[in-house]
Parts: sequence; C-alpha cells; structure tokens
Amino acid sequence: MPRAPKLNVVPFVSVDNMMKLVLALGIERFLVELAGFIEADFRRWERFDKTPRVASHSHDGVIELMPTSDGEVYGFKYVNGHPKNARDGRQTVTAFGMLADVSTGYPVLLTEMTILTALRTAATSALAARYLAPKGARTMAIIGNGAQSEFQALAFKALTGVDRLRLYDIDAGASAKCARNLEGLGFDITICVSGEEALIGAEIVTTVTADKQYATILTDNMVGAGLHINAVGGDCPGKTELAADILRRSEIFVEYPPQTRIEGEIQQLEPDHPVTELWQVIAGTARGRREAGQITLFDSVGFAIEDFSALRYVREKLAGTSFYDELDLLADPDDPRDLFGMVLRAGRT
Amino acid sequence: MPRAPKLNVVPFVSVDNMMKLVLALGIERFLVELAGFIEADFRRWERFDKTPRVASHSHDGVIELMPTSDGEVYGFKYVNGHPKNARDGRQTVTAFGMLADVSTGYPVLLTEMTILTALRTAATSALAARYLAPKGARTMAIIGNGAQSEFQALAFKALTGVDRLRLYDIDAGASAKCARNLEGLGFDITICVSGEEALIGAEIVTTVTADKQYATILTDNMVGAGLHINAVGGDCPGKTELAADILRRSEIFVEYPPQTRIEGEIQQLEPDHPVTELWQVIAGTARGRREAGQITLFDSVGFAIEDFSALRYVREKLAGTSFYDELDLLADPDDPRDLFGMVLRAGRT
Repeated sequence: MPRAPKLNVVPFVSVDNMMKLVLALGIERFLVELAGFIEADFRRWERFDKTPRVASHSHDGVIELMPTSDGEVYGFKYVNGHPKNARDGRQTVTAFGMLADVSTGYPVLLTEMTILTALRTAATSALAARYLAPKGARTMAIIGNGAQSEFQALAFKALTGVDRLRLYDIDAGASAKCARNLEGLGFDITICVSGEEALIGAEIVTTVTADKQYATILTDNMVGAGLHINAVGGDCPGKTELAADILRRSEIFVEYPPQTRIEGEIQQLEPDHPVTELWQVIAGTARGRREAGQITLFDSVGFAIEDFSALRYVREKLAGTSFYDELDLLADPDDPRDLFGMVLRAGRT
Repeated sequence: MPRAPKLNVVPFVSVDNMMKLVLALGIERFLVELAGFIEADFRRWERFDKTPRVASHSHDGVIELMPTSDGEVYGFKYVNGHPKNARDGRQTVTAFGMLADVSTGYPVLLTEMTILTALRTAATSALAARYLAPKGARTMAIIGNGAQSEFQALAFKALTGVDRLRLYDIDAGASAKCARNLEGLGFDITICVSGEEALIGAEIVTTVTADKQYATILTDNMVGAGLHINAVGGDCPGKTELAADILRRSEIFVEYPPQTRIEGEIQQLEPDHPVTELWQVIAGTARGRREAGQITLFDSVGFAIEDFSALRYVREKLAGTSFYDELDLLADPDDPRDLFGMVLRAGRT
C-alpha cells in the first residue's frame, strides 16, 4: 500500500549536504549542467514573473529577497551582502532559498544557497562569456581573489575553455589561497602584483572584489580592444568597480535592466544608456559579440531567475539521493480546518 | 572555556516544537503576551521599514513575502493563500518566517508560521478590538468557523473579555468542530443557522470565511448601530466579505493603507476614502471608538510588522527551552574568503 504523502515535510538541503551533492556530481559537471538550466530559463524569460529584488539597506549592508515564478513553480532567495562580515570571520554573502508549488503554495524545497549562489553566479558569468567573449579565449585575469574567484575560474574552464589565469588581489594572501585551491585542476596560474599586470595578455577579465564603495578596479587605460569584461563585484547601489569611461566604450549586457540600473556598474551612467539584455542574446533575438575588436561587458548583479534555475537543478539532482533532511515545516492537521484542534491534541499525547 | 559560537547554525522551530512552545506557555497567555509585543511594535511604527507585501498571484491563490525591519532586526514571512487547498486536505494558509541580524545579515531564527500566523492574526484582531469595540462587549458572532475561528475566540476572551459566542458557517460541521474545540474553555456557545441569527445580540462580529471571491457575508441590514466588525477573511484582491454599504456607514481602521487599499474590504471603495491607521490609535495620536452608536470596522489583512512581533516573541520565549532544532543553514568556512576550499575539503574527509 503506498504511504500517504507527508504533507508537513519539506526536503531541506543543509550546507553539509549541498557540499556532498556538489562533490558527488563533480564541481565542473555541476557548473555545466547548472548553466544549462540557466540557459533554458533565460530562453523562456518572458514566461517569468519578474521584479527587482526587495532590498532592505542598512549602514553595514543589505538584506534582499529575490522572488520569481514561471507560473508552475515559485522560488525565492534570501541573501545578504555585508562587506564588513569578513573581518569578523563571517561570510560577506550568505543565502538560503526555497521552491514552492504554485498551485498549492506549499514549499517543496528549502536549501542553503551560500554555496549554491557562488555556483550560479559563476555559471551565469561563464554562460554569458560563451556569447560575449572573444572566440577561443583561454586567458582570464581575475581581480579580487576572494570567495567567488575559484568558482568563476572553474566555470570559465568548464564552459568556455579558459585555462590560463592571472590573479590579482590587494591581499596577496587571497591570491595564494585561490592558486592553492585551483592547484591540480588544469590551470596555468600566474599571481600578479597589480591589476595592470594581471591584464597583460588577458582576453577576459573578471572583477570580483568585495568592498562596498565606488572603487576603480579597472581604469580606462587598462582596457584594450577586444576584451570581455565580466564585472561581478559591483552589485549594489554605491558599489562599483569600473571607471565610467570604460562603460562608455563597451557594449553592455545585463540581466534585468530595472535592477541593473540601480545595482550594477551602469548606475554610473545616465538612466537611458543603451544596454542589451542577456536573455535576448541567448534566445537569438539580439546579438552578442559582433567583432573581434569590440569591448564587451557583462554587468552582472545576479537575478532571481538564476536562483530559480539553481533551485530547480538542485531539486532535480536531489531525487533518489540521501543529501537532504526532512523538515517538519508545515502544519498538517487531519482536517485542514482544524488547526486549533491539532494544537490542543498535541497537548494530550 | 566558552565554546566558539557556531556561526553555521540557525535555531529552527518545527510545527511540533511550535505546538509544544504554545502549550507550555498556554494558548491564552501566548495570545496576551504576543498582543503586547504587537502593541509595542505598533507604538514605534515609524521606526520600521514598511512595504506592501510582495505578492505572486496565480489562478489558484497567492504566494507572498512580507519583509520588515526595525533597523536592528530584519524579519520576513513566506505565506500562501490557496482557498482550494482545503478540498485536497491541505491548509488554505501555510507560512514560515525568519529573523536576521541587520548588522551581519545572518539569520537568527527560522520557524514554522502557520500556527504562529493564526495566533498573531487573532492577537491583532483582539488588540484592535480593545480600542474599537463597545466597552464591556461580551458577545461575539463568528461567521466562518474554519481554521482561524477558535484562535479569534480565545484571543477575544483573553484580551477583551468576550465569553459568549454565536457561531455560523455554511458548513454546519465547521461550527460543530469550533464549538467542540472551545468546550471547557469558558465560553457560552450558540450555533446559529444563518448569519442573521448569529448577529442577534452580538456587540462584535468577526467575519473569517475563506472563499476567494467577492462575497457578501454581511449585508447592510445585518449591521446595527454600535457594532464592531472584525473583518478578517477579506484579505486579497478579489476577496471581500462585506457589502460596500456597510463600509460607508463605518469608521474604518486599517493596518497599512497602501496594502489594505489593495487587499482589504476597502478595495471596494474609492482610493481616497478616509481610514484611520490602527497604530495611531494605539500610539494615542488618533481616536478609536468615539461613541456607543458608532459602527467600527477593523479591516484586517495582516501586516509584516505583526509577523515581526510574533517572530520576536517566539525568539524571546525560545531562550532556555529545548523547543528548537539546530539547522546547518549557513556556510561557515574557517577563512570566510575560502568557500571553495571548504567545499573541496569536504570531499577529502
């Protein structure tokens, strides 16, 4: 006899189980397959409920909710960004998220998303680069060698064939950590003493620093013809990494303009500066890189649909594994009208 | 030596533990103390970040996120409303929520909120009635005897002294269930065969039906002078319970006008129809009931600050108890920049 479904139970993926899942699949395979899910969802972009994230800003950082829905499944992510956290031994960004069934509103997955966000951010960057970076690019500079850097490196390797890295961070220890973590994973790695040096010979540059301020990680003179800029670190109001002059020389690609104009590098530009939406490039209705000498810029801020894709991917991969716990999250009285009676009866057992 | 705080761990209150907590404290005490927390937060209303809930509507219902923050603590609730759920043995409304530390963005509490929402809705209604209902009112009609009805009854008893109930539901079984659950809890209960009958002698009427439609649970002729109407069931676009004529004869009190004008009974009125904000009555800057013959209406839709108060209350009561589990929700590498290394090392152990 089939067991009645336990309506109160929601599968929960802890940090520990997320690591196990990622390692069981292999990080590169995870990134490639995840990018495939993101690509598929970007192709059906118009089917999604889209809204800029709901942000609560404070002196030290920001807390955001990022919801979206494709009409069948609803997802959201809770994510914070607190640059000062690293000084106290905490993560700058932590996150968790959830999927729910639109037809019942019942959650069907709750999961850590700190690791998952790192993976989806990298997968999205590398996916964008497949359409925007110079053909056959193998050398990438990474400026900012913190928590996101290795994920970016591995995603670009798995998705675009990058295998030469030029690392720079104002903290040499961060570069050493990044190089150490990537050892044996198929990269030729050079640690550089400046951003300028990192860019020598690079066909792609990934900027992924963490400070919450208007910074100038890339100055105009550092950016030569043909470069693809993967700008990841500038992702909230008051936090940018590129000199505005670079933006004016670049063809700019974004996830969701209403959000990117507030949070991305283009917050430095006039609000009607032309940008191309990445989903249109992926869907074939807009062009990516047109010529070798063009400077392309992916002004990445992270959009809810990428998290949705990641949640969807994890849910699919979780089936048949033991990498989750069952969380008693939903009240499930025998008679749905009898919530009160359920509470009363709990006191009698 | 003090243990280092486990940064990865978030206290989680399951449905089972929430029931245990509520029963350990006693339902009436829980409602009274919770109303105290809500009252205190309504008094400092202006200190909160306020935003209408972020709703995702679908054919069968709605999924909402309700965030708020007082600058020190951030909270949000996930909640769905799916009237058809009851037909499949599911709850119409389920919810969970979270508190986080604004200065770090780290979650500090994750909890079921299906039961907690039922409690906070009732506590808010009874709190409003203390300012709006006729002095010394002891008789309340409850129209709609589903999952919320007993909580309303008990909150009104504990906070306002109501001890005579007149129950009506289109499903007589629901009224019987409600009466059974409230047996021995100090009420004189009459089950009625119509809304009209339920209102005979009632000084307060609580409408709390569940259908997602423009319904007319109260018609104009049913509402006599001096009545306090606690309108709980009309809480989303397209879902109302009262004839518009009643609204025009009533002094209307609401939680947060930008939200109530979309979701509440007053969605039936012109957008500038005068309403009074409940927090102002509580803070003493606006008047509640002015005279015995006045019809007062609390157009309750549920606002994020009430959930925030409820989360805050649960967090305080949880301390020193065992009514929670520790959830491995947050990635916590020894070096916060080394998220990738943490994943790699997990594979080596």
